[in-house]
Amino acid sequence: MPELCDNPATELVRLIAAGEISPVELLAACRARIEAVDGRLNAIVATCWPRARREAEAAERAVRAKEPLGPLHGLPLGIKDLTLTEGLRTTFGSPQFARFMPAKDQAVVAALRAAGGIVCAKTNTPEFGAGANTVNPVYGATGNPFAPELTCAGSSGGSAVALATGMLPLATGSDMGGSLRNPAAFCGVVGMRPSPGTVPNELHRLGWSPLAVDGPMARNVPDLALLFEVMARADPGDPLAAPARSPVPPEPPVKLAGLRIAISEDLGFAPVDKAVRRRFRQVIAPIGDLFGRVEAHDPPLDGADDCFEVLRAIAFVAAHKETYEQAPELLGPNILANVEQGLLMSLADVARAMTAQTEIYRRFLEFMADYDLLICPAMAVPPFPHRELYPSEINGQPLRSYFHWLALAYGLTLTGHPVICLPAGRDPAGLPFGIQLCGRRGGDRRLLAIAAALEQALQADPDLARPLPDLAALAASGT
Amino acid sequence: MPELCDNPATELVRLIAAGEISPVELLAACRARIEAVDGRLNAIVATCWPRARREAEAAERAVRAKEPLGPLHGLPLGIKDLTLTEGLRTTFGSPQFARFMPAKDQAVVAALRAAGGIVCAKTNTPEFGAGANTVNPVYGATGNPFAPELTCAGSSGGSAVALATGMLPLATGSDMGGSLRNPAAFCGVVGMRPSPGTVPNELHRLGWSPLAVDGPMARNVPDLALLFEVMARADPGDPLAAPARSPVPPEPPVKLAGLRIAISEDLGFAPVDKAVRRRFRQVIAPIGDLFGRVEAHDPPLDGADDCFEVLRAIAFVAAHKETYEQAPELLGPNILANVEQGLLMSLADVARAMTAQTEIYRRFLEFMADYDLLICPAMAVPPFPHRELYPSEINGQPLRSYFHWLALAYGLTLTGHPVICLPAGRDPAGLPFGIQLCGRRGGDRRLLAIAAALEQALQADPDLARPLPDLAALAASGT
Repeated sequence: MPELCDNPATELVRLIAAGEISPVELLAACRARIEAVDGRLNAIVATCWPRARREAEAAERAVRAKEPLGPLHGLPLGIKDLTLTEGLRTTFGSPQFARFMPAKDQAVVAALRAAGGIVCAKTNTPEFGAGANTVNPVYGATGNPFAPELTCAGSSGGSAVALATGMLPLATGSDMGGSLRNPAAFCGVVGMRPSPGTVPNELHRLGWSPLAVDGPMARNVPDLALLFEVMARADPGDPLAAPARSPVPPEPPVKLAGLRIAISEDLGFAPVDKAVRRRFRQVIAPIGDLFGRVEAHDPPLDGADDCFEVLRAIAFVAAHKETYEQAPELLGPNILANVEQGLLMSLADVARAMTAQTEIYRRFLEFMADYDLLICPAMAVPPFPHRELYPSEINGQPLRSYFHWLALAYGLTLTGHPVICLPAGRDPAGLPFGIQLCGRRGGDRRLLAIAAALEQALQADPDLARPLPDLAALAASGT
Repeated sequence: MPELCDNPATELVRLIAAGEISPVELLAACRARIEAVDGRLNAIVATCWPRARREAEAAERAVRAKEPLGPLHGLPLGIKDLTLTEGLRTTFGSPQFARFMPAKDQAVVAALRAAGGIVCAKTNTPEFGAGANTVNPVYGATGNPFAPELTCAGSSGGSAVALATGMLPLATGSDMGGSLRNPAAFCGVVGMRPSPGTVPNELHRLGWSPLAVDGPMARNVPDLALLFEVMARADPGDPLAAPARSPVPPEPPVKLAGLRIAISEDLGFAPVDKAVRRRFRQVIAPIGDLFGRVEAHDPPLDGADDCFEVLRAIAFVAAHKETYEQAPELLGPNILANVEQGLLMSLADVARAMTAQTEIYRRFLEFMADYDLLICPAMAVPPFPHRELYPSEINGQPLRSYFHWLALAYGLTLTGHPVICLPAGRDPAGLPFGIQLCGRRGGDRRLLAIAAALEQALQADPDLARPLPDLAALAASGT
């Protein structure tokens, strides 16, 4: 049996509810793990141990008093540092907010606390979540637990690293161009980009944009589902959220042999490194046999690059134009690049991109009518040193922008469909390799059920099982 | 008892299902009414009588054979000429489509047919629905049934006129800047702008824009609810539509005395003619006594004009930029004005407008937390001659654009909340006067229930009852 903090979240809540372990003990185990390995990694950027300790003690008393317990009762949680946490520093990775202490929880955090979760840590992110390399001027870079000089990806990098190393059993992420799928892939954990509106965000600046969503991250799919069910709520503050949630009928069990699968190496448009393609084929070969029907079929995502560049620019101009005009020195290079690109664009560019977005959505809907699942690689390149902010070329071809290497992720973002990133063994360099599973529209729970079944099959194959970092080496090399 | 075609739709479906009247007889009555009065009005611009007659005969046989009947079984329906009808000319009011014969029904039309409705006529609209005066180069102007030289408003003008005059028992409309509320108000009928996504549109070019919606139009609220329940569907082709519809629990009955109401003469920002303000106060005085609590309170819609202008321009540039560049002579003045305005705008303008839209939504949500209903006037001015394409000033103040006089309508559009337009007697000139009822987010059925209760109270007051046009005079003056 692993150490307490390495147990699955579903197992930990069971043990806590049964009184077999104490939330205080679990919190201490997580803290000890953070202190042992995070010196080398820098995933956790703010903590509130005294408050968390009091909450863990209260959680322990609640168990003893046989009070009704929430689904996350007593679990230590990590919150991505783009989300407001009352009394716990929230910086967005930006020097502008280096000392910002929110007076109020964001609604998703309040929901996690109401479910019994113990918010004890903020996890690192690039400045305002821009780009997929978790490094910022407030806290610096977060290292990959399999090779700390390499990037853990991002922008939910701190959460992925904390999960991979047993620092925390569950953590939140968010995702526009793959921000929770990318680091899940590079760190060997799981992340879910829900259908837009499923996990509401009452502070989303562009309420009707389906691009940026919050989502759960975990070490395995049942844990992911546990966190998803708490994060998925009704909240009228998010106009894309359903007005009210009826009780959800239980998802029938999945038989992989009954499913029809599309396989795509590059979604038909994304630049993908040759080594990634090779490894993807090695992963898919044994997986293919599990399903009823498998077809190599690229989805129709023509125009995705241009569409995403324009829609992304709207979000950055909306958020940062004022700062750009008044104090550009407060913004880092990724943000500046986005704002400057956006300020050159016209309403006609937006009209073209919004039309393309709708067309991509409808074409993909039609594509998915024939499949239960689309599987593609999660990342276009293997992990690279975090000092190189982003790859500038793939297979010798220069890239369009600092985020073009994320086309595998943002291609699926544009479809409006739910996606789960699942670890599938290691690449030839011994680093985690991830695959994306894209499910049908609105079928978030069905996708979780499929991913759980596939995960079981992968875990049974030594070549495809979830990779584990060398914790002893990390602890020995810690600062 | 009125003539057959003047009966409520709910009564007509009951009589048909009971075998007391024949759909063939009803269709003939509608046709006779159209032939009697539409020469003067020009509401109906395309018909398919032979096919409708065959369908009515089949509907009659189905009743006799005791087959299961849909909720609209045997009812003649009018479809706004912006919606595709298989084999029935669809022009969008544009010379570009003057001879366009769709090969396929739009999904909402297919749903109406599946519910037993008999699509027999297209109703007039301005070119591509732009502006609230129903006149276009293909079919000309539609007259107001209370004064045919005056405008019936628009863009769903043909539907409103057909309903007001008993030509058809139910008709469809659509609404961005009030397109189904405006003509309902000027013609003394009812129209509902549903919450975005409730009535899906699988052809909507900007899938995530909540501005343009389809909705039902009728002569009274129970009829409106009948049509609403058929138009409200699940359709994944509309990304704003809910992925699946669970069965809807029945709405509990409404007691007006238990409701909290906000009253606003101008939504705090809209230019409104003094005579309209006076009449609105006269209407509200007796209504006020019906409710539990009534407060004069303007909603916080600051920035609505700029926000709507930009978001509206995106829709027009998306739809017409190509035509504008290649053959501007094919576009009328309203469309040209919108496209030209939009081509001068930047992505930064869009970012500002989308941010404002989200802020307006959230501020209004908070405002409505204190109320069950907001009531305001439907139109800022009384009906004017349709030769004057739009009013250029209100109370001596010049207007910003050809649609600025519709601020009472588009202000509520921006809130994302459902709205019903209800007739409330006549203005001093004897023309119909309408009020808007705005309900709570997602509470479309609750709003219908409130409107039905209020309608009953209005009908009991001779000064506030629904006005009826002089059909005999219309028939006598017909061409």
